[in-house]
Order: sequence, then structure tokens, then C-alpha cells
Amino acid sequence: MTGPEAEVSCPAPKGRYENVVLAHGGGGALMQQLLERLFFPAFGGVGAKDRQDAAVLDVGGQRIAFTTDSFVVKPHRFPGGDIGSLAVHGTVNDLAMTGARPLWLSAAFILEEGFPMAELEAVTASMARAAHEARVTVVTGDTKVVDRGKGDGIFINTAGVGVLEHAAVTGPGAVRPGDAILVSGDLARHGMAIMASREGLEFESLIESDSAPLADLALSLFEAGIEVHCLRDLTRGGLASAMNEIAGAAGCGIVLDEAAIPVREDVRGACEILGFDPMYVANEGRFAAFVPGPSAGAALEVLRAHPLGEQAVKAGVTTEGGSARVAVETVAGTWRILGMLSGEQLPRIC
Amino acid sequence: MTGPEAEVSCPAPKGRYENVVLAHGGGGALMQQLLERLFFPAFGGVGAKDRQDAAVLDVGGQRIAFTTDSFVVKPHRFPGGDIGSLAVHGTVNDLAMTGARPLWLSAAFILEEGFPMAELEAVTASMARAAHEARVTVVTGDTKVVDRGKGDGIFINTAGVGVLEHAAVTGPGAVRPGDAILVSGDLARHGMAIMASREGLEFESLIESDSAPLADLALSLFEAGIEVHCLRDLTRGGLASAMNEIAGAAGCGIVLDEAAIPVREDVRGACEILGFDPMYVANEGRFAAFVPGPSAGAALEVLRAHPLGEQAVKAGVTTEGGSARVAVETVAGTWRILGMLSGEQLPRIC
Repeated sequence: MTGPEAEVSCPAPKGRYENVVLAHGGGGALMQQLLERLFFPAFGGVGAKDRQDAAVLDVGGQRIAFTTDSFVVKPHRFPGGDIGSLAVHGTVNDLAMTGARPLWLSAAFILEEGFPMAELEAVTASMARAAHEARVTVVTGDTKVVDRGKGDGIFINTAGVGVLEHAAVTGPGAVRPGDAILVSGDLARHGMAIMASREGLEFESLIESDSAPLADLALSLFEAGIEVHCLRDLTRGGLASAMNEIAGAAGCGIVLDEAAIPVREDVRGACEILGFDPMYVANEGRFAAFVPGPSAGAALEVLRAHPLGEQAVKAGVTTEGGSARVAVETVAGTWRILGMLSGEQLPRIC
Repeated sequence: MTGPEAEVSCPAPKGRYENVVLAHGGGGALMQQLLERLFFPAFGGVGAKDRQDAAVLDVGGQRIAFTTDSFVVKPHRFPGGDIGSLAVHGTVNDLAMTGARPLWLSAAFILEEGFPMAELEAVTASMARAAHEARVTVVTGDTKVVDRGKGDGIFINTAGVGVLEHAAVTGPGAVRPGDAILVSGDLARHGMAIMASREGLEFESLIESDSAPLADLALSLFEAGIEVHCLRDLTRGGLASAMNEIAGAAGCGIVLDEAAIPVREDVRGACEILGFDPMYVANEGRFAAFVPGPSAGAALEVLRAHPLGEQAVKAGVTTEGGSARVAVETVAGTWRILGMLSGEQLPRIC
């Protein structure tokens, strides 16, 4: 690889918004702006420090992880999952990305008056199955009902608590130049499954969401003694947004190799038809791991030994320099800069 | 007191609902039905066992409490608080009711496209103030945005984690016949503040919500060495619903003395005008404590020493017998049975 030759300009959104827009929840630059201008200052900047989805806290000398996510995905059911399984996987994965073993979930439902009871039963059963599979227990919950026309069938919030069983401190702050960036599998299936389902599109093959619980796979790295610097699930905003956040927080550059990153042919085709870049499309069962360059081979071997990591690859490296720029060498051998999207790519993907 | 003379019939709701109705979120019999028929069986019955809003869990020998609540209150601002302060108080209080010291909160927002940024800033500032006052830290969060017409401005979920600093095991299972039931202050202000605000009603005096963080007041009982059997905040469904839940779970009867239970004159008047029974109206800064009968005096002294407990009273006693009936001797000296409401008394009160 030689250095990037051209930059695609991707200016940060300017000024202030008078009203909330969809992109404030989209995982891109506007959501970052909301965090940095409003939530981090108000709440003491806790999240700002380590830029992790889950907080790591000390309980009598034992580290626990604590996180929350609301799910508003539309439609509620899609190939490969539903809002119930997604609500379990999303929170389990946020815990796992701190290196914690997820143990307990909460489940809080906001139901719209008139939501069919049979659908609520199906979603609840799906949550229960997903929780069982991920070996977490739903230990507390809440139900609210809003008037017809003031919700959208069902929203679910899951918060989660897990325990860190090792002493490793991971996160963007631990990322070093020369780290290898591993990606645990093929990209863009969740977003494309939702889009195809929403638009009623049929492709030659069924695109199923990759939604899955990642704790076992992620923890297998620690258990194998790999020095893990940072883990990040590739949800809203996809690989590109995750890499931008980490490069920015770590103060390093990132260079990705597009040819190495698996995207299924039918998924790539769907992205082209619908005008999406797979690098920005949400996944719900994929993560990136930052490990010291020399450990890349051993770490890949560990990941590939697990069914959810069979397709794991080395997708890139971190570089010196505080430019926090994410560059990708394309399949054609050209370079492009992956900026932070300012708009909403896929609303209500999770 | 002599025995109750008459029973008001209050049959449990029969049959199955095809669709969700507002009362499924109302804190009454329909919500209990949803819990008992759907959520408890699906999620392993964890909540069913101790019937507490928060779960008590073991982390390396240290007990923690974990809870969740979504807030959909309408309007977002009301005399004495707003959805932000309420979201902090509600979760802090659920933790405190297990005897835990609340430490950490999550904050997850579901915003409707078009929600004014200035209102979001005001709500966030209110949450931050309430968290500071309750000595908890918001350590993790999430933001989702739904399309215009698919939400109602702002919904907030807060989950919370606290630590139990003593060895007491409290809950309905620890309630014994002969326990004194203490109520920490005057009832029905939160519900009436919301209703007056919603209906644009003006009474002679302003009715402000009682919304407040209860952890210091509740923990003062443990710190004073009082043997606490059960604590319960008197939220959705009010004192009457809380007493029914506890009587049912503990397998005892409850006899309340209406004359002893403080309800402000203007609040009682508002209830009469609007057709509500103060015993069923939601509070957000009041709780009931079950303590051994002989400890009632000492416990009241402890509660009254705190600004939020100045009006604490002995409101009743638990009795032998598995009828799980809650009876109240009225001011007029007659008796009535307080059943579990099957309908929704006050929708979207929290």
C-alpha cells in the first residue's frame, strides 16, 4: 500500500439544529455532536472518557460492565431475527465489547395501545430464546403503554450487567500504532436484511441478518491469552463509523484493505442496487478487535475456531499520527477516505 | 377497629385480550396478568419470586440491585418536575426499595423526529440536576430517533445499579402478621399534579408532584438498626395497589386506617372533582415500610427526622390469614375493601 492519494471531503455538520432529526439517532456525525455537546457535558463526561458503549465500574474490587440500548427497529420481524432477539444481542454485545461476561438483562417495553398480544408473545418468546442462547437472565423489567398513534407497536429497552473476569483494560485509549485490526466476519447483512424487508425487495437469495451474541467469541481472545487492545461491535454506522470513532479517540490513523473484508456477493449487489456502501451498513453480530500486530495470526486462529468467527480476517492496521483519518485501499487499488457520515444512512435499523 | 362489614366486589379480569390496552401499563390487575401469564414464565420467573421492582444479584459476594423503568409521562413538564427528574427519581427509588444505595444510572432516549432541541436540553439538564441531588452518576446511554408520528416527543428509559451495604433481606417474603405499615408522607400529589396539568385545571393552590429521591430516607432505617421487612414505593396504582401486591405475595391480610393517612385538603378536593380515590393515585416520592409492630415508634422517629419523611405515619398493620385482603377503616368508621383495579386509572402518569 502507498499513501492515500485523494480525500473525499466530509465536513462535520455545522451550526445547531433547532429540532431533532432522524440522523441524531443514526450513529453518524450528528449523533456524535449530540453526545459531545449535550449528553457528555450534562452527565459529567463519563462516556466521553473511554468512548465505550458500556461503562466499566468497580463493585467492591470486582469490575462490572453496565450498558443500555433501546430498540426501535422497523419492521419488528426480519429475516434472521426480530426486535426481541436483537434487543438481547445488542446489549449482550455491548457488554462483551468491554471484555465482560454478560450475566443479567433488564427488559422494558413501550407498547402502543392496540399492539396485537400474539405479536407481544412472539417477541417475548424470541427474547427468552436469545437470552437462553447467550446465557444471560432477564432479571427485571417494566411495561408502559402509550395511546394509539403515540408509539409504533413496540419499542424495547434492554440494559445489561456483566462481570470482567480478567484484568485487561481495553478501549480506544489502549489502541497503539501498529495494531492489527481484525474483523470477525462478513459485513452489511443486518442492514441489508432490514432494508430488503422494509422495501419488500426480493433478491436471488435471502439475506438474513447476522444478529448474534458475541460474548463467547470475544471472550475466547482473552481466554487464549491474546493481548486485546480494543473491541468494538460494528452496529449503527457500520465498520467505517466505528473506525472513525476509535481513530479519533485513540489519536491514530487507520488503514483498511477493502479486498480483505468479506462482503457476500448478494449483499454487495443489494447495497449497489439500493445505493449503500457496505462499509457504513449496520451489523449486529460482527466486531473489530485491535491486537498488537505480531499477535494477529494467533488471534485470527482463535476467532476462526468459533462458528461465529469462521470468516474472521485481518482488515487493516493502525498508523502513527494524530490525523485520526481512516483510509481504505479499494479493490481497484485506489484510495479513499472513510469519513464520518453526517446524515442518516439507515433509520431505525436497531 | 372491628372486622370489615362489607366487601366491594372487584373481580379479576377474565379471559384474554387480543390487543394491548392502556391498562396493561397501568399498575393494576391487567398489568399483573401480563406479568404472570407472559413475562414471568418466559423469563424464568425471576421477578415472580420476590415481586420487587429491582433484582438483587450477587457479584463476587457483594449484593447489587439492578432495575429498569421507561418513562412516557404526559405532559413532559408538570408542577414539581419533568420527565427527566422523574426518570432519575423513579429508578433511584426502585433501587432504594431493595435496601440498596443507588450508584449508577443509564439514560436511553427515544426521541420523535421534530422534538425541539431546547426541550431536550432542558430535560437533560433536569436529569443531571436530579442525578446530582440523588448522588448517582449517569454512566452510559443511548439515543434513538423515530419518525414523526411514531413517538410522542420524548420517552426515557433509565436502568440503575446500586449496592447493598447491609445484610438485611427484605421484600414481601419477609413480611409477618403484626407488622406495622408506615407511610412516608402525604399521598396522591404526583397523580393529581399530572392530571391538573394535563386537563389545564387550576385549583386554589398549586398541586406539585411529590417526585423525590427516596434512597437517603429509606436507608436511614437500616442505618438506625431498624429491622425492615419490606419497602415499597407507591407509584402506579398508589398505596392500594402496592398493598394488594404485597398482601398477595406475603399471604397475609392488611388493615389500613384511612384517618391516619395524610392527604392534603386541596389534593383530596382535586381527587373528588376528578373522580379519583387518593388511595389509588400514583406517588413518586412516597413509600411504605413494613417493620415489626414494636419497632413502629422508633422507625417513625427515624423517618420524621428526614425532610422527606416529616409527615410519616403508621398507616396500618398486617394480619393473619391467607386471604390477602386489604381493608381500610374509613374516616366515617365504616369498612371497605381495597381491591386491585382492573382498569387504567391514570394513563401515562410516569
